Amino acid sequence: MKKRSPCPISTALDILGDKWTLLIVRDLMLGKRRFSEFAESMEAIPTNLLSDRLQRLLTEGLVERRQYSAHQKRYEYSLTDKGEELLPTLTELADWSHKHLKDTVQPPHPFTKDN
Amino acid sequence: MKKRSPCPISTALDILGDKWTLLIVRDLMLGKRRFSEFAESMEAIPTNLLSDRLQRLLTEGLVERRQYSAHQKRYEYSLTDKGEELLPTLTELADWSHKHLKDTVQPPHPFTKDN
Repeated sequence: MKKRSPCPISTALDILGDKWTLLIVRDLMLGKRRFSEFAESMEAIPTNLLSDRLQRLLTEGLVERRQYSAHQKRYEYSLTDKGEELLPTLTELADWSHKHLKDTVQPPHPFTKDN
Repeated sequence: MKKRSPCPISTALDILGDKWTLLIVRDLMLGKRRFSEFAESMEAIPTNLLSDRLQRLLTEGLVERRQYSAHQKRYEYSLTDKGEELLPTLTELADWSHKHLKDTVQPPHPFTKDN
């Protein structure tokens, strides 16, 4: 991953700055675990991009996986603590979006703000 | 702007989901106002991408501009309320990044968390 500057916002976007990566993090926070579940989300991520983004999340230590089928290479994915700790960022983003962008639904649990 | 779903996170990423747009928002929050100032930031955004992202931010109502030179088309840019209200999202992202990603500096004002 090419690092553009020591700015924490820039470095975060080196990893997360695209249209798909944070949707996979969202799906994991909503309880999805398998490749097919991420692929079935409404935004219809192309499977080649899904593979690429999952691999990046594994490499960067935001996601871990365990093989759940002994005879097939099938994995269940979950967030590490590092990945889970993006929840406040996604909660603030969802709150901003629902307030300012048309035709967005109220953020569901776990993206609800206390206030 | 193509809307992929009514999910507030997805709709926010339709606008903000790339490596550059939130860096322009960051620069505006740090007090930068002019095209040349954004272009001079350490991440060295290519000027064609800077033009494109500024136009998108104007179109989406996160940024406004005023012409400051009567005889040349030169503009100063600033955040609207809608743009300013991304501060909590960027503050959380910067906090996460500084905690978890190597060689990132402490977030400066206005991206400092109270706690």
